Amino acid sequence: MNVQTTARLLITCPDRPGIVSAVSSFFYNHGANITALDQYATQPEHGTYFMRLEFQTPHMDLSRHVLSTTFQEAVADRYGMTWQLSFAADRKRIAIMVSRHDHAMLELLWRWSRQALPCDIHAVISNHPDLADEVERFGVPFHHVPFTADSREQSEATVQSLLQGADMVVLARYMQILSPAFVAAWPHRIINIHHSFLPAFVGANPYQQAYDKGVKLIGATAHYVTADLDQGPIIEQGVSRVSHRDDVESLRALGQDLERQVLARAVRWHLEDRIILHGNKTIVFG
Amino acid sequence: MNVQTTARLLITCPDRPGIVSAVSSFFYNHGANITALDQYATQPEHGTYFMRLEFQTPHMDLSRHVLSTTFQEAVADRYGMTWQLSFAADRKRIAIMVSRHDHAMLELLWRWSRQALPCDIHAVISNHPDLADEVERFGVPFHHVPFTADSREQSEATVQSLLQGADMVVLARYMQILSPAFVAAWPHRIINIHHSFLPAFVGANPYQQAYDKGVKLIGATAHYVTADLDQGPIIEQGVSRVSHRDDVESLRALGQDLERQVLARAVRWHLEDRIILHGNKTIVFG
Amino acid sequence: MNVQTTARLLITCPDRPGIVSAVSSFFYNHGANITALDQYATQPEHGTYFMRLEFQTPHMDLSRHVLSTTFQEAVADRYGMTWQLSFAADRKRIAIMVSRHDHAMLELLWRWSRQALPCDIHAVISNHPDLADEVERFGVPFHHVPFTADSREQSEATVQSLLQGADMVVLARYMQILSPAFVAAWPHRIINIHHSFLPAFVGANPYQQAYDKGVKLIGATAHYVTADLDQGPIIEQGVSRVSHRDDVESLRALGQDLERQVLARAVRWHLEDRIILHGNKTIVFG
Amino acid sequence: MNVQTTARLLITCPDRPGIVSAVSSFFYNHGANITALDQYATQPEHGTYFMRLEFQTPHMDLSRHVLSTTFQEAVADRYGMTWQLSFAADRKRIAIMVSRHDHAMLELLWRWSRQALPCDIHAVISNHPDLADEVERFGVPFHHVPFTADSREQSEATVQSLLQGADMVVLARYMQILSPAFVAAWPHRIINIHHSFLPAFVGANPYQQAYDKGVKLIGATAHYVTADLDQGPIIEQGVSRVSHRDDVESLRALGQDLERQVLARAVRWHLEDRIILHGNKTIVFG
Repeated sequence: MNVQTTARLLITCPDRPGIVSAVSSFFYNHGANITALDQYATQPEHGTYFMRLEFQTPHMDLSRHVLSTTFQEAVADRYGMTWQLSFAADRKRIAIMVSRHDHAMLELLWRWSRQALPCDIHAVISNHPDLADEVERFGVPFHHVPFTADSREQSEATVQSLLQGADMVVLARYMQILSPAFVAAWPHRIINIHHSFLPAFVGANPYQQAYDKGVKLIGATAHYVTADLDQGPIIEQGVSRVSHRDDVESLRALGQDLERQVLARAVRWHLEDRIILHGNKTIVFG
Repeated sequence: MNVQTTARLLITCPDRPGIVSAVSSFFYNHGANITALDQYATQPEHGTYFMRLEFQTPHMDLSRHVLSTTFQEAVADRYGMTWQLSFAADRKRIAIMVSRHDHAMLELLWRWSRQALPCDIHAVISNHPDLADEVERFGVPFHHVPFTADSREQSEATVQSLLQGADMVVLARYMQILSPAFVAAWPHRIINIHHSFLPAFVGANPYQQAYDKGVKLIGATAHYVTADLDQGPIIEQGVSRVSHRDDVESLRALGQDLERQVLARAVRWHLEDRIILHGNKTIVFG
Repeated sequence: MNVQTTARLLITCPDRPGIVSAVSSFFYNHGANITALDQYATQPEHGTYFMRLEFQTPHMDLSRHVLSTTFQEAVADRYGMTWQLSFAADRKRIAIMVSRHDHAMLELLWRWSRQALPCDIHAVISNHPDLADEVERFGVPFHHVPFTADSREQSEATVQSLLQGADMVVLARYMQILSPAFVAAWPHRIINIHHSFLPAFVGANPYQQAYDKGVKLIGATAHYVTADLDQGPIIEQGVSRVSHRDDVESLRALGQDLERQVLARAVRWHLEDRIILHGNKTIVFG
Repeated sequence: MNVQTTARLLITCPDRPGIVSAVSSFFYNHGANITALDQYATQPEHGTYFMRLEFQTPHMDLSRHVLSTTFQEAVADRYGMTWQLSFAADRKRIAIMVSRHDHAMLELLWRWSRQALPCDIHAVISNHPDLADEVERFGVPFHHVPFTADSREQSEATVQSLLQGADMVVLARYMQILSPAFVAAWPHRIINIHHSFLPAFVGANPYQQAYDKGVKLIGATAHYVTADLDQGPIIEQGVSRVSHRDDVESLRALGQDLERQVLARAVRWHLEDRIILHGNKTIVFG
C-alpha cells in the first residue's frame, strides 16, 4: 500500500438499489482507482448499508476539499449518507493511558517503533510514575497525572489538556474509570482492552472471577469506551485454553499475552479505518 | 488400551507427603501395572490432593471386591481419601434427553455406533416425538414423554422410571428445566450442553443474546447439571470466530458444530473417568 | 437469503480502473439489487482482478439468457473478462466417492439432509460395498464399482457413466488414485480431503508420517484435484493440537473430526460460488 | 512455586512394573514432598518409560551430591535409568544468537526482564551489528561476530569462546547454518525457531514458499537443533489463519507474532525441565 496516495471512505446509509454503482462511478469518473471495496447490509432489503472504499488519488481531478463537497452534493445527499473520508498520509496521533501493567502499552510502542502501526504516538499518560523510563526510551513523552477519588475532576482536566492534538486514546490497562463527560469528549475514539471474554466477567479482577468460576478458556476483549463500564461496542476478542492447573497468577500471564495481541489488532483496524459503528456493535471490514 | 484389563481409580484427599508412594506401592505390591498416573494439588502444601490412576489387572492377587476393601483399610483410611474405582469392562449406560434439535444427539449416537464412545446407550427420551425414526435407526429405544408446565411432576416421574438401569444422563439440547429433586437424584451424573460461552449468556436463546451484543466469538459449554440453572461445574468449552456478517441463523449453524464437538469431548472424558469434582469446578486429567 | 431470487457472478480479468463502476452500473441499470460484492486484485495496479457479485433478480428487465449475452457484449468484452453466472435456484448435483471410512461422507450427507448444504446428492460411488446401507438410509443411490490396478480403465469408465448428470465430485476419503484423463474430464470440479496439513505429509498414511515426525499439531486439507497427486489448489485447512501421548490411532480419531469440518466448509463454499481459481491457488470470498 | 526449594528429576528407562512405587517411595523416605508427577510409556507394556518429578527439598535428609549418588545406587541402577536432576535455584544461563530480525529476541528479553522466563541471559551474539543498542538497553552484553562462508571456522571458534559459561543457546532467527561440530558441542541444548509449520517449507524463505503454495494457515516451529537442517526434534508449533489477501509481507508480519509466542513457550518449557528427548521426538510434560 502506498501511504502517499491511499484514501479511504466509510459510508453508512439506508439501503436501496444503486449505491455501489453511484459511489464507484463517482470515483471512477473523477480519476480515482478503487483498490478495495467492502460492503455489508443488515438485511437483504430496506436495512442499513455500510461501505468501506479504499482508492488511489494520484490521477484524481479534485482536491481534497473539493472532493468532499462534490461527493456530498453528487452522492451523499441523494442517498442520505453519513460518511467519513481519511487519507493514509494523515497519520492518526494516539495517546496511550496506562496504570502499572506495562505489557499492553509496550506491545503498542514496540509495534509502532518498527512501523507496524501506522500512527504517531502523541504521549503516554499514567496515574503512576512507574513506567516513565520505559516510555521515554522510545522517545515518547510521558506524563504522570495522579488520580484519586477526590481529584478526578481536576485530574481529568489535566489529562484533557495533555490530549490536545491527539486523534484517539488507547486505554492500555488504565485502571481508573473515566467520567461520562470525559468519554463524551472522545466519541468512539477511546479503545479499551478488558481482560476477559466480555460480557463475561465485567468489572474488577476478571482473572480472579475466571478462576473462581473454573472456566476452561480465558479471553480478552478490545472495545470502544462508552459511558457504560465494559459495555461499549466490541471490536475484537481472543481466547486461550486453560486448565484446573492454572492459578490466578498463570491465568494473568496467559491473559496478558492475549491482551497484547487483541489490543494491537483492534488499534490497527481503527488506524486503517476498517471499523464502522452500528448502534452498540461494530462492522469490521477485513 | 485393553478394555478387559484396565481399571481406574480417582482419589480426593487432604494433601500431605507420601500419598503417591503409598498408592503406587499398594498397587505394585498387589501385582497391578500402573499405566497412567496424574495428580494435582490445589497448593504446594496443605491443599487438596487429587489423583487419577489407570492400572492393568491381569496379574493382581486381589479380586474386585477384596481390592476395594483392602485399599480402603490399607491406604484410604490412613489418608482420609474419597475414592472411586471403575473397570473399563463395565461400560457405563448413557440415557440421552433431547427436544427437537438433533445435532448433539446424533453426534453422540454416531460416535457410539463406530465405537468412539466407550458406553452403552440406554435410551433416548424426548419431550417431542420428532426424532423417533432417527433414533430407532440406530437400534436405540426412543421414548416420547410430553412435558408441560402443569405436568412436570408426572413427566419427571415417568422419565425417572425410564432411566432405571442408566448410569448417567446427557442433556443433548433438552429444552426443559429439570426440577431440583430430579437433579438431586443424579448427582454429578447429568451433563448438559449449553449453547454459549458460560458464564456469558445464561438462560434462553443465547445465540440471539450473542447477536445483540455483537461478540466476535461464540461458544459452547458442557457442564454438570446442578440445581442452579447453567451454573454447574464446567467440563469443557469451545469457541468459534464470527463477524458482523453473521445473523442469528448463521450463529446457530456455527454454534451447533461447536456444541457437537464440545459435548462429545465432555462425555468421553466422563466415560473414561477423567473428571473429579472440586466444589463447583472440575479437575480434568488429560 | 432467498434461493429463488439470488444469482451470483464470478469475474476474473486484467485489473484496470472502472471495473466496479461498469459492473455495478450494468446490474443497477437492469434492475438488479446487489446484495454482496467482494473484490480482490493481486497488486495495486496492473495485476489480476477478481470479483464476486451476489444480486437479486426479481426486478430485472433481462431474462437469464439475454442477461448473459448482454453482459458479455456490454461489459465482459470491454474488460477481457472470464466470468461465470450461477443461480441459487439451480442446485448443484454432488456425486460422492468414498472407500471404507464413512466419517467424511456421513458429515456431508447429514448436513445435506438437514438443508445445511445447498445441493442435491446425485449418488455415492464406492470401490467397496461396505457403506451401502448407510447411504441408502438417506434415500441416496449407492453404486459399488470395484477398483483394481488392472481394471482401472474399465472402472473409471463405469464411474464416468454413473456420474452423468452430476455437477461436481467430492472425494470423501476415496483411496484410489484417479487417472489424469478422469481428472481432466472434471476440471476444478473434484474436491478432495487429504488427511494432513499440506504440503506436509503428501501420499499414503499421513497420520503415521505425523506420528513418526513428532509434530505437535495435525491437519487436514481440502483441495481441488489436479493431475498432480495432493498438489491441487488448496481451498481450506484446519489443525488440531496433539501431544506425545497420541498414538497413530488417536491421531486418526482427532484427524477425522478435522476432516469432516474442513471438507464440509470447502464443499459449502464451492456450492455458494465463493471460490475462484488463480493458477494453483484459490481466492475464497467470505 | 518456591524457587529456593524446588527440584526436578527427569527419568528415561525401560518400562516395567514398580517404577513409580520405587521412585516415589525413595523420595518420600528421604523427606521430599512430591508436588508434581507426570509419566508416559510408549506402550502399555515393555515400552520406554518417561517420568518428570517435581519435589520440595527443605525436609530432605540428603545433600545434593549425596542425593544423586544415593538415587543412582538405590533406584536408577536397578531400573536402568537415564536421569537428570535440576534445582530451580540454579537458573540456567541462556545465550541468544540472532541476525537482523529483532522480534523473537526482543520477546525473550522482554519476558526475561519481567521475570516471566526463569533464567539468566548470558549474552546476545549476532552476525550483524544492528541490534547492539536494543540489547544493551536491557543490560545484556552484545557481541558482534561477523560470519562469512570463508570465515565460518574462525567465527564459530569465536562464538564458542563467548559461550563459555552458558547452559544453552537459543537461535532467535539466526540466519547462518551452524556446522555439525558446533551443534555436536551443544547436544539438545540449542533451540531454534523456524518460521514455518515443519515439515512443510524447510529451508530458506518459508513465507515466500507458503505464499506460492497458497496455504490457508501459516505456522512456526520451535525445535532442538541437530546436524540435519530443520529436522531436529519438534518442541512446539503454532498456526495462524491467512487468506488470499495476504502477500509475503503480511504473512511475515503475522508469522513473526507466531514465532514470538511459539519460541517463548518452547524456551520456558526447556527452562522448567519439562522436555525429554525420545529419538527424534520430544516428550513435553505440561
